[in-house]
Amino acid sequence: MQSKKKGNIFIISAASGTGKTTLVSRLLKNNADLRVSISHTTRAPREGEEHGVHYHFVPKEEFESLISKKAFLEHANVFGNYYGTSIAGVESLSNEGFDVILEIDVQGAEQVRNVLPEACSIFILPPSLEILAGRLKGRGTDSADAIATRLAEARREIGEAAHFDFIVVNDDLDRAEADLLHIIKAGRLKRQAQQAFLDGLLENS
Amino acid sequence: MQSKKKGNIFIISAASGTGKTTLVSRLLKNNADLRVSISHTTRAPREGEEHGVHYHFVPKEEFESLISKKAFLEHANVFGNYYGTSIAGVESLSNEGFDVILEIDVQGAEQVRNVLPEACSIFILPPSLEILAGRLKGRGTDSADAIATRLAEARREIGEAAHFDFIVVNDDLDRAEADLLHIIKAGRLKRQAQQAFLDGLLENS
Repeated sequence: MQSKKKGNIFIISAASGTGKTTLVSRLLKNNADLRVSISHTTRAPREGEEHGVHYHFVPKEEFESLISKKAFLEHANVFGNYYGTSIAGVESLSNEGFDVILEIDVQGAEQVRNVLPEACSIFILPPSLEILAGRLKGRGTDSADAIATRLAEARREIGEAAHFDFIVVNDDLDRAEADLLHIIKAGRLKRQAQQAFLDGLLENS
Repeated sequence: MQSKKKGNIFIISAASGTGKTTLVSRLLKNNADLRVSISHTTRAPREGEEHGVHYHFVPKEEFESLISKKAFLEHANVFGNYYGTSIAGVESLSNEGFDVILEIDVQGAEQVRNVLPEACSIFILPPSLEILAGRLKGRGTDSADAIATRLAEARREIGEAAHFDFIVVNDDLDRAEADLLHIIKAGRLKRQAQQAFLDGLLENS
């Protein structure tokens, strides 16, 4: 009676240091019907990175050809390297019935919203900027100046949260993971997603 | 930093026999920040029913005076008795920070949607009309004719599910309760509901 549902698309953004990557990893580990979209990039693979797992590593010419074919939901050039989310990749996962997470920055999120207004966007906030500053310092890899620059950038990104559909505060990883799951599960219960079941119920009776 | 949030308003409707009342009771029992709106009615209390708990029992003149003051979110006259949901009652619970459930029929839901477009509406479906028929027969209190009439009515009501925001299938009480909770919790994570926290984060830094 019920045909396979297309999965929904979720944009997840955050300021750096907010725990986004940890939360997305947990969600993927605990939910078999979730996938993260694997980005294309022209940068060189780092130690341990695999093609098709961490990124689709492609030459610059191929990336630019994909741009000209409008093959990306969003793309950006960061310090000379391209990064992008392929429309075909996301559509294929969604058609297989997976909910698809796009783990992207606020500029990418804006591009996706323009192309796919039905995508659900979630911004992850730190409990406070003081705690975010503590987390960035705790990494111990950056100078005081670099941390100040990243905090100013975080503040700017957090200002963009006003354009997102949902806001999750990462004050506790378990709670934040549960909150993300509430949003994702609710997406499957929207009437549009249940329409085939509803039609079947009324037809086959 | 975070001021007390207003609760959200959830319309929950279903065809009779779908398990709506059981599910709402479970939700209320397991979630301290949820309340159900207590309706006004002009019908006489039945054995065991308490004023202010099951209904606000009021005289017909008072009910009609409330109608003329536009004091109801929705109201109806069923077999000569009035039933209605008071705006003041719902607002008061929401202002105290409770999420408020309106357990009402599809006509009432339509009235509420017109007045409160921000209310979130959920329709509970049976897994199939055969199973619904089985449940209605299982009660053993109605004649075959009465059951046929109620099934036809259920079919008509289920047709109205197309106007609701979310659809939950009650094939398993635990699963359906979890689904309702996903929708209710996601409501608390909407950007509009989190705006005060977001503003505080950017101000106090």
